[in-house]
Amino acid sequence: MAVYTEVGTEELSAFLDHYDLGELLSCKGIAEGVENSNFLIHTAAGHYILTLYEKRVDPADLPFFLALMEHLAGRGLICPLPVKTRAGTALGTLAGRPAAIVTFLDGMSVRQPAVTHCAEVGEALARLHLAGADFARQRANALSVAGWRPLAKRAGHRADTVAPGLAALIEEELAVVEASWPNGLPEGVIHADLFPDNVFFLGNRLSGLIDFYFACTDTLAYDIAVCLNAWCFEPDGSFNVTKGRALLQRYEAVRPLSEAERAALPLLCRGAALRFLLTRLVDWLNVPPGALVRPKNPIEYLKKLRFHRYASSARDYGLAA
Amino acid sequence: MAVYTEVGTEELSAFLDHYDLGELLSCKGIAEGVENSNFLIHTAAGHYILTLYEKRVDPADLPFFLALMEHLAGRGLICPLPVKTRAGTALGTLAGRPAAIVTFLDGMSVRQPAVTHCAEVGEALARLHLAGADFARQRANALSVAGWRPLAKRAGHRADTVAPGLAALIEEELAVVEASWPNGLPEGVIHADLFPDNVFFLGNRLSGLIDFYFACTDTLAYDIAVCLNAWCFEPDGSFNVTKGRALLQRYEAVRPLSEAERAALPLLCRGAALRFLLTRLVDWLNVPPGALVRPKNPIEYLKKLRFHRYASSARDYGLAA
Repeated sequence: MAVYTEVGTEELSAFLDHYDLGELLSCKGIAEGVENSNFLIHTAAGHYILTLYEKRVDPADLPFFLALMEHLAGRGLICPLPVKTRAGTALGTLAGRPAAIVTFLDGMSVRQPAVTHCAEVGEALARLHLAGADFARQRANALSVAGWRPLAKRAGHRADTVAPGLAALIEEELAVVEASWPNGLPEGVIHADLFPDNVFFLGNRLSGLIDFYFACTDTLAYDIAVCLNAWCFEPDGSFNVTKGRALLQRYEAVRPLSEAERAALPLLCRGAALRFLLTRLVDWLNVPPGALVRPKNPIEYLKKLRFHRYASSARDYGLAA
Repeated sequence: MAVYTEVGTEELSAFLDHYDLGELLSCKGIAEGVENSNFLIHTAAGHYILTLYEKRVDPADLPFFLALMEHLAGRGLICPLPVKTRAGTALGTLAGRPAAIVTFLDGMSVRQPAVTHCAEVGEALARLHLAGADFARQRANALSVAGWRPLAKRAGHRADTVAPGLAALIEEELAVVEASWPNGLPEGVIHADLFPDNVFFLGNRLSGLIDFYFACTDTLAYDIAVCLNAWCFEPDGSFNVTKGRALLQRYEAVRPLSEAERAALPLLCRGAALRFLLTRLVDWLNVPPGALVRPKNPIEYLKKLRFHRYASSARDYGLAA
């Protein structure tokens, strides 16, 4: 959580002149999102989120992300809706960075999801997958299986400074997922990062999904695997099968899984755990001096990966036989 | 700018149950204030700022600060108004910290104040001094002249690592201000930290004053000296006498200065510069590892202090003879 770029009132007011949002009344940098700078702005027209895209986001991807949010919102998914200028564009430049304004969503993220939250996420994820089915644009997942070995190389033997034997375990896992990563499962738009930080609730009801900046075109069931990792483990590292069942049942109530998707679930979960283990490991080993953001501990995902190594079927995640 | 304490939705909702603010709809940590954790909250009743007071604030001082804001708001000054619980208290406990909710103010702070902003600040400062005249509570200024030598001792000879000769210069300045600090000038409530960060504008009109957590009972003209330091120097270290004149003239239009206050202005400015030089120096020399906030460079105030050493009368700050 950080604000990387400060924005002067004058330049922000000039930026807003391109929109039909009325006078700027307030602008607060908010501690939300680790990749970009976010501001909560109040104008005569209401409350909005202003995002400045920092260097970890490829500007070439921004039209995909913004068009996707517009597409999903148009199909009834509650997600930020990009606001367009009078000229009809959603993407501008502010303080030297690509910038966009989206609608503000009420709701709070939960720190310790309960079973009901997992169920709500399962349903929302399935609705997202259905709503994305007719989205025309494509974006490859740079952080899918082909992207993992380069990450492992960046960590190299320094992985063992985080946990003894970690470099060898990563090598082993890479061999497994590269050899048997499933092909031919249903594909489409996936969120790819639907962690508790990115889901809002009002009480126990899901009130919105945010942060589509890892969204891409990939295997739909892989998105479920990311969520099982992010939502259904307890702080002690144990998998809560009741949460897994709740997530999967409510997902299937909207979009039933094929036999092939069910069969692939353990391997997809293993891959998803490896993906977050690797990105966290690389961040952990490469904290720049004076960093404003503390990296997340990769060990959490090592524990999750160990669980998936011993899972033999979708039943281990709570799916009914 | 930082959020030091995270607050869970459940504990925040329980805290809000004591207020008549309706359901919690949103809570965002905001990058505002360096001493405390601040959150912008949205409830069924509207938008508010929630502050958790961190360790640099003495909890015993909080009733003074909150009562002062209520007093000033009641006299028409635009400042945050503490919101009370149904039991009538403005100060509670949240996440193990003293906590209060205040009304949200529109407006933005300016990074590079123009002459008109300085004029507005002068007027608002005088109105604050008048509005505070009948405030019953007292709070000594721990960072007035008696508090500076202990700060200088904490820096010690390490001051010279920031600028050669700085330790000796500080010693010299301490001797001057301790020997001749004015007594008997009009006293009352002062803000004591009215920097551009703490003043909101809508366009060129001042729309509110915030952050009363250094407010205390002290010499009113010292508060002017703090503002001359904070508002009227250019980024290159030069004093902009047009800005000084604008600030002083609009102050005097509301509350004329006595001859004694005018005569004391150069020394008060010198003391105010020394105060911010010393607190910044101590912070600069004592950055804790992993700090989320980068300290402000003390050199800025060394330059300002050098200007004040050569000022001989209030005319040097733009006051008409």
